[in-house]
Amino acid sequence: MIDNTLEEIELAVTQSWQAFQTYSKKSLQERAAFMKAIAVELALNEEALVSTAMQETNLPQARLKNELGRTIFQLNSYADACVKGDWLEIRIDTAVAERNPPKPDIRKMLVPLGPVVVFGASNFPFAYSTAGGDTATAFAAGCTVIVKAHPAHAKTSEIAAAAIFQAAAKTNMPHGIFTHIHGASVEVGKTLVTHSLIKAVGFTGSYGGGKQLFDWANQRKEPIPVFAEMGSINPVFLLQEKLNQSAIDIAKMYAASITLGVGQFCTNPGLIIAIQSNALNNFINCLAEEIKKIAPATMLHQGIANAYAEKKTKALQQKNVTTVAESVAQPAQNQGQPTIATVDAKTFLENKILHEEVFGPYSLIVQCNNEDEMLTIAQHIEGQLTSTLMATENDIIKNNQLIEAVKNLCGRIIINSVPTGVEVCYAMQHGGPFPATTDSRFTSVGADAIKRFARPLSFQNWNDNLLPDELKNNNPLNIWRMVNNEWTKDSANR
Amino acid sequence: MIDNTLEEIELAVTQSWQAFQTYSKKSLQERAAFMKAIAVELALNEEALVSTAMQETNLPQARLKNELGRTIFQLNSYADACVKGDWLEIRIDTAVAERNPPKPDIRKMLVPLGPVVVFGASNFPFAYSTAGGDTATAFAAGCTVIVKAHPAHAKTSEIAAAAIFQAAAKTNMPHGIFTHIHGASVEVGKTLVTHSLIKAVGFTGSYGGGKQLFDWANQRKEPIPVFAEMGSINPVFLLQEKLNQSAIDIAKMYAASITLGVGQFCTNPGLIIAIQSNALNNFINCLAEEIKKIAPATMLHQGIANAYAEKKTKALQQKNVTTVAESVAQPAQNQGQPTIATVDAKTFLENKILHEEVFGPYSLIVQCNNEDEMLTIAQHIEGQLTSTLMATENDIIKNNQLIEAVKNLCGRIIINSVPTGVEVCYAMQHGGPFPATTDSRFTSVGADAIKRFARPLSFQNWNDNLLPDELKNNNPLNIWRMVNNEWTKDSANR
Repeated sequence: MIDNTLEEIELAVTQSWQAFQTYSKKSLQERAAFMKAIAVELALNEEALVSTAMQETNLPQARLKNELGRTIFQLNSYADACVKGDWLEIRIDTAVAERNPPKPDIRKMLVPLGPVVVFGASNFPFAYSTAGGDTATAFAAGCTVIVKAHPAHAKTSEIAAAAIFQAAAKTNMPHGIFTHIHGASVEVGKTLVTHSLIKAVGFTGSYGGGKQLFDWANQRKEPIPVFAEMGSINPVFLLQEKLNQSAIDIAKMYAASITLGVGQFCTNPGLIIAIQSNALNNFINCLAEEIKKIAPATMLHQGIANAYAEKKTKALQQKNVTTVAESVAQPAQNQGQPTIATVDAKTFLENKILHEEVFGPYSLIVQCNNEDEMLTIAQHIEGQLTSTLMATENDIIKNNQLIEAVKNLCGRIIINSVPTGVEVCYAMQHGGPFPATTDSRFTSVGADAIKRFARPLSFQNWNDNLLPDELKNNNPLNIWRMVNNEWTKDSANR
Repeated sequence: MIDNTLEEIELAVTQSWQAFQTYSKKSLQERAAFMKAIAVELALNEEALVSTAMQETNLPQARLKNELGRTIFQLNSYADACVKGDWLEIRIDTAVAERNPPKPDIRKMLVPLGPVVVFGASNFPFAYSTAGGDTATAFAAGCTVIVKAHPAHAKTSEIAAAAIFQAAAKTNMPHGIFTHIHGASVEVGKTLVTHSLIKAVGFTGSYGGGKQLFDWANQRKEPIPVFAEMGSINPVFLLQEKLNQSAIDIAKMYAASITLGVGQFCTNPGLIIAIQSNALNNFINCLAEEIKKIAPATMLHQGIANAYAEKKTKALQQKNVTTVAESVAQPAQNQGQPTIATVDAKTFLENKILHEEVFGPYSLIVQCNNEDEMLTIAQHIEGQLTSTLMATENDIIKNNQLIEAVKNLCGRIIINSVPTGVEVCYAMQHGGPFPATTDSRFTSVGADAIKRFARPLSFQNWNDNLLPDELKNNNPLNIWRMVNNEWTKDSANR
């Protein structure tokens, strides 16, 4: 695909801003109808989307069908959440005329920020890309969207964009509500993020890419929020009683999680921390046997495969790092070879290279001498999307300090399961302390993600008939609202 | 006061981090008890607080008593909100074992960020300072607090800090939960904001100060959120029908608002925009008469008084700016003289100096030739805390584009009243698009301000007895929670 010119981008942003003036005033129902129409169009284009994505990403058909289904589910469920209106965080404090001084009537709701730029992910051509979660939640918030297509699946992106254009036409949305930009060069991204009419950015990708966008956005005359998801090694802590009881089961479960989708998930468990023991040896031996059996598979594209090989080689070359197991089958070109390595805790703590994500089917087992070393690791790992505890109740109760440290470093803490698999639901937090994401206060999955693209606006002393429907006395949209400190769907009597 | 040394600051931050490990696990009830104890201690020390603040800030006794009352109200109402728990944004999605793949149990709540640094305001020695809104909401969120005392009221700050220490001792809070730092030098603030164990910053003051903190915080290895309120000129749009009907009433109302507290409020109306007409002339004439009658009064301190004189002189020297009226009484030393000026819309749009805040009893009337000019101004003013419309229903309905532009530039939009007076309630949004504040998505007033100092954490697959009380099945804290997409206080049955 040919990069859009800077003139084309300027025009696109201006049209997006103009469309925002119209779209931001559309009712919640109208926004939802548009989003659901996108879901319909995506479903109609399933064959073209999946076959094109198979060519561009090497991902298998079943996985892509599943991801497209998830993308459609996101659009529909976020559309429902948009109408339900909980994300609006409505607060109504009615006037108290007899107070001295009189208390004014004040009503607050979230309003959309403005045009949003979305940079999709290489590893999710549907769910985190053109018509993915960032785009869907921005539309729900009332924002217009400019997507910069990921160069690794630009044709798939074109088809998804066409579905959005179709849906916009069918639901009478303003021209400019959605724009699809191609740009392999850094200049395109920079132009978009630094444009004064762009008001927020969504990104899923590497630390380098996300941090660059964050810096550009903060160096603007008017800084804007950047929601960048930038990678995570998702530490797994094996606590002793659990390990003693279930070393083999845990090993089998994790062999599958580490190699799921050739390890190409942001929640892939790249770090396993445990204390030296016979049970740990059993775990390692079993994990090694499992990993040896798993066949290498083709990665998303050559760049990803090369990066995996390089990062893995670099990690394995570090002092005191030992390879525990590799798949017996050797990888063909662009395939990722499942690999497990191990290192002692002291070396791990001293060598930050070992804290870096190796994006692919790889995990590093850190062997601690005692609980103190495990705690120290939990206190010194950078921010993560997830952390997992494999633990009995006794383990949890006995390791209070560790559990607190682990909570502190992540956005989602899992017990006795695997971090892969990100459920699309309200309770999901997909986001974590820096550098996992640039803003740990927001999630990119689940309907709360809508709130990333909105800000509160208070209306003081407005007549009921002039207020937005969301804030009117008789609650015509039937939204849960906090009225005079209490949650209700009832009318807010002045 | 002598600046704390960098060694003392290092120790303070380390102790704050250690105290955070304990305090963050305190129950909502315990946090609220601590906050209410602070309120009690402040009330017990009213005489010392008010008399010391009178000496340090020149603010009159009645105003200071009122502000102290507001500060106590904030602590108590935010303590109540802390216990009520709406700010926790609890979401529970229970497991669905029969789904393929099985849906896990996931539960989300907000958890505190860590130690918070608070920089108080010169113009509010109580409500926005040492024991003010930032400190109170950080405590409610479960964060520890380090206050850098404002050098302009450092002794007042000492008394407020002593009240917090007393309350902490009486409610058995950990040593280090609160720290009081003195530092007139820039180095002290920089050391605090760039320290790796500091996790958020609250600030109320100038654009220069707030932007510097924001930049330091974003240049850290791990960027942290800065909630800086940096100034606002709070535009007031006089629409025609309303102006025709009520020019005299509006003029009297605004003469009072512009000069309230010697104009030393962040919500002071510094800009009035109207279309040339006989009614506007009547308004201006009446406002001029009122302003002439109002006596100059002593400002907070010499620095503020000098800055007011300088900024005002600079504004009045700009091309096409005319002084409309000054108080007849001449200002004594450190007094601010009420002043009204006027300029045409074209000049205003071209000269950004006229868009800058003149902190004090000053307002600029911008005279437009027509509605288009008024709209252009609304589209080109930078972000504001508030905007006000003086308007009839007809005016609102007829000026749809203007109203949307005005909404877009502020955090609170008022009809037919004045922006001064910031109600402490849930529906208050005190924050607005940059440069009014650094993060328009949050408020610094009202219980939603607690959310600034917290982030979501999801618990996946946890046994009920190991979960925090907030997330347990039977809802022991009786908090409103969203369970499987519905708001309820009922038990969350798995």
